[in-house]
Amino acid sequence: MHKFVRNFLTEWRKLGLPFENASFIAAISGGADSLSLLLVLNELRERKKLQNRFVAAHFNHNLRGEASRKDAEFVRALSEKLDFEFVGEISDDQYQISKKGNLEQNARVARYEFLTETAQSYKAFGILTAHTINDQAETFLLNLIRGSGISGLSGMKVLNSKFQVSSSKFKEKSQISLIRPLLSWARRDDTENFCRENEIEFRNDAMNEDLGLKRVRVRKILLPMLEDFNPKIIETLAKTANLLQTESDILMELKDQKPNTKDPYLFLKDLKTLSKSAVYQVLRNWLKTNRDNLRQLELKHIEAIASLIVSRKSGKMVELPNDEIIVKKEGKIFFQKRKVEKSGSAN
Amino acid sequence: MHKFVRNFLTEWRKLGLPFENASFIAAISGGADSLSLLLVLNELRERKKLQNRFVAAHFNHNLRGEASRKDAEFVRALSEKLDFEFVGEISDDQYQISKKGNLEQNARVARYEFLTETAQSYKAFGILTAHTINDQAETFLLNLIRGSGISGLSGMKVLNSKFQVSSSKFKEKSQISLIRPLLSWARRDDTENFCRENEIEFRNDAMNEDLGLKRVRVRKILLPMLEDFNPKIIETLAKTANLLQTESDILMELKDQKPNTKDPYLFLKDLKTLSKSAVYQVLRNWLKTNRDNLRQLELKHIEAIASLIVSRKSGKMVELPNDEIIVKKEGKIFFQKRKVEKSGSAN
Repeated sequence: MHKFVRNFLTEWRKLGLPFENASFIAAISGGADSLSLLLVLNELRERKKLQNRFVAAHFNHNLRGEASRKDAEFVRALSEKLDFEFVGEISDDQYQISKKGNLEQNARVARYEFLTETAQSYKAFGILTAHTINDQAETFLLNLIRGSGISGLSGMKVLNSKFQVSSSKFKEKSQISLIRPLLSWARRDDTENFCRENEIEFRNDAMNEDLGLKRVRVRKILLPMLEDFNPKIIETLAKTANLLQTESDILMELKDQKPNTKDPYLFLKDLKTLSKSAVYQVLRNWLKTNRDNLRQLELKHIEAIASLIVSRKSGKMVELPNDEIIVKKEGKIFFQKRKVEKSGSAN
Repeated sequence: MHKFVRNFLTEWRKLGLPFENASFIAAISGGADSLSLLLVLNELRERKKLQNRFVAAHFNHNLRGEASRKDAEFVRALSEKLDFEFVGEISDDQYQISKKGNLEQNARVARYEFLTETAQSYKAFGILTAHTINDQAETFLLNLIRGSGISGLSGMKVLNSKFQVSSSKFKEKSQISLIRPLLSWARRDDTENFCRENEIEFRNDAMNEDLGLKRVRVRKILLPMLEDFNPKIIETLAKTANLLQTESDILMELKDQKPNTKDPYLFLKDLKTLSKSAVYQVLRNWLKTNRDNLRQLELKHIEAIASLIVSRKSGKMVELPNDEIIVKKEGKIFFQKRKVEKSGSAN
């Protein structure tokens, strides 16, 4: 078995995806990545390793006129030759690409609307896309350059089990998985080589050569330069995106449980259910809201307030700089300014 | 007041640093960054905004022979002219730079040993270094290219209140702060301009021009290219490093409280003190160790185990895929394989 096929099967197993009796929609643009997906599915079906129903779905964005039509025709013909069911759609019909705002983003929304509705009509387990680690690395760099926190840098997920495209078309939570079975291991080179070895000529989107597009400049200029520093830069960046995703997931859960720090008081019972780190985080946010900043506040102050919360022995008050105090009463802690006796002064 | 001086004073206030009666050691190499630090301290001292004792400290790494000696002489002369106390040290004397391993790293250790001991002998509040947001952005990129998790990408801290250099010289926890008062706002351009406006010629380290060094290539080649994508790339990367630092601090606290997930059981009492996110994280790690992987495990399984931990009503067992079970007994949860009745088979 070709290494590409073996890796794919290993990933399929690792993700716990069904080996039979399920339907999948494979998103096929006609480029090397998605054709390698179609080819590997074909091979595993022939070898009876995967006995699912696989449907090739092509969304014709219709942004490049005749070239778009040729891509669609090419994918349809290859799907039929390989004996895949084929579903094609032209954006101008049912799925309009909005002309307002970011064209790339709008095209993506229309494409996923089409893929989701196709998956629904086939009662599919999931949608398969052919994103590679190169896509992951490029996305990471684009987000980094634009400026992102940890969630923006987390990158795409290999398996998004309740996928939902941001679209007014879908109100209910989807039960469809979005699966990227190449994302964690396949390089773009691998998909191109796999197509060549199968003697399948892939289509090149002219937009992939347009240096006016940031993503193309990242791919053609920035990444080759970063390879001078680290020949494994693609893998390194993709791994970083994955690491940050794990951390981001933990932090998201943490944020969900936080009490509202905009109030002038916090309930002791809410604080007592939190981990130490979460308490510290809540206190910092709460003090920042109530004092406008964290100036002159030190770790020892936060620690004293944390003790005040849990212990009966720590008294009823913590003093902060600038005559500010934290008072414990009636099952809450309050932020207060101490009333200072003004001495008569010439100033 | 010059904007550079005003920004510095604002940062000093924001960090809650003392305005009088404290001693500080300022690390001065002779480059634009550290000279701008010396100049701003001089101006604030003259304006009586800061009435502290400031000592200029220069560590002569002695790696560039005559050029090193000239730098040291230059810093000494300027310090005296500006009426700062001066402490100079040559690496060959008390603070040897190890020749084993990474020279840059070893030079750093020797330098901070010198700075720490100088600070101790002056009973100083802290050490001031002149790192700029450019240094932060460069460090971030170097760590990113090399491959780092969230803590490696968090960058330098503006204030490290119990600074300790990794050195066998220091056994006890230091009470000295390492303070980088330019780090959050000053660009290298700003320090160079501030020196020029004060008619002070700064020294250029020949190593800053050596394209054989990764840091120099990042500064001279990579960052200018990234500026084509985002003219504010330096600020963007520095801000990202800061964001990741906050998140990293939270996660570090979280990790400190985890039970050992290598055991075949977990104590309920340990789990009950954790936040929900921490419990999920512990369970994932524990299952991964006991099953070798997380294959076929879904969120619903983790949720069921979490319920088992907290509730008396959730029974004594959770079933996982592949005849694996989690059993609650004797104040612990255990991971077990269910015993399967084998039917007589020809295989």
